[in-house]
Amino acid sequence: MTYGERIRVSTRGNTDVADITAEVEHVVAASKVRDGVAVVFVVGSTAGITTTEADPGLMTHDLKAFFERIAPEGEYYKHEATWHDDNGHAHVRASALGPSLAVPVVDGRLTLGTWQQIVLLDFDTRGRQREVVVQVVGE
Amino acid sequence: MTYGERIRVSTRGNTDVADITAEVEHVVAASKVRDGVAVVFVVGSTAGITTTEADPGLMTHDLKAFFERIAPEGEYYKHEATWHDDNGHAHVRASALGPSLAVPVVDGRLTLGTWQQIVLLDFDTRGRQREVVVQVVGE
Amino acid sequence: MTYGERIRVSTRGNTDVADITAEVEHVVAASKVRDGVAVVFVVGSTAGITTTEADPGLMTHDLKAFFERIAPEGEYYKHEATWHDDNGHAHVRASALGPSLAVPVVDGRLTLGTWQQIVLLDFDTRGRQREVVVQVVGE
Repeated sequence: MTYGERIRVSTRGNTDVADITAEVEHVVAASKVRDGVAVVFVVGSTAGITTTEADPGLMTHDLKAFFERIAPEGEYYKHEATWHDDNGHAHVRASALGPSLAVPVVDGRLTLGTWQQIVLLDFDTRGRQREVVVQVVGE
Repeated sequence: MTYGERIRVSTRGNTDVADITAEVEHVVAASKVRDGVAVVFVVGSTAGITTTEADPGLMTHDLKAFFERIAPEGEYYKHEATWHDDNGHAHVRASALGPSLAVPVVDGRLTLGTWQQIVLLDFDTRGRQREVVVQVVGE
Repeated sequence: MTYGERIRVSTRGNTDVADITAEVEHVVAASKVRDGVAVVFVVGSTAGITTTEADPGLMTHDLKAFFERIAPEGEYYKHEATWHDDNGHAHVRASALGPSLAVPVVDGRLTLGTWQQIVLLDFDTRGRQREVVVQVVGE
């Protein structure tokens, strides 16, 4: 049994962290899958998906500071020299984090921890309308 | 066909790296799935899952040194200022690594390389009892 | 329904980035799966899988510079001291990136963005023949 939906997420870009757990749970409930796997995938090459505690300190400061440390916005990116744009760091951060996450579904529920939420990180340099595909496979 | 189990892993925290390959293989064997996918997911927001060669140098030094370089324990984390705890770096490292891994199952076996093991990294600042959900989907 | 194939990729190593999107799409088409998930997994512990825009600047410079920044080749790795080899940085980079990617399949197609390609990064210090397992699960 396979069931999927596309969800839309409005972001402000610049390593904006959006909690999409409720939207993913809604798709899992609609799927009627009792046991299986949910894949959460962001379309595009300047955003990524992971989990975090939905704590304001982590979501508004710590994750952003981390990505600025490992792939600084002011660094030289050949991508920018080629295309005369400004989001080379966004591409690199997105590839490093990865666009997808697989979460088990057991008894109709995602097996997330109590303080573990599914988040979309938008690394682009402007706000975007992001499309996230949630695909549930199981029985 | 879907089959899953929860496995328990005792860690010492502080980027302890635990080889859980045998436990995951046990679940795959019990699943009777011949061809499909195994998803390995750690519950909680201060640990992650990946693969590595189970070499003592990598497992006791190199991976820990890497995470200390990219997300130092002594760095400022707003998460810690808010909650008066000490594991901001653990949260950031866990989000960067990601909590899950998907491995193909072919002819009843994980398609790992000879020197490629599945590992749990526990970034928290104390030993923990970790819960890992292994979900096998296929036929 | 499950369908899988192994694909071979020749690399030059040293964080060589290979676009394998066409090969993965070929397996998805051969699978006859209309709706499901494709898992792309590289065998071995010195390579990883992610997505990126297939832009020469990113693929030949920016991703390599990023991994050299976070896990420098000249850093001390205990793995090298033990085995008298030179690829400790390759192991660490591979564990950080991760060996697998899960992409939804909808109406028989991967849900990639227009400028989002699936890539293999080979971090080893020499060219390799890499084996990538593509497993498609769905209906």
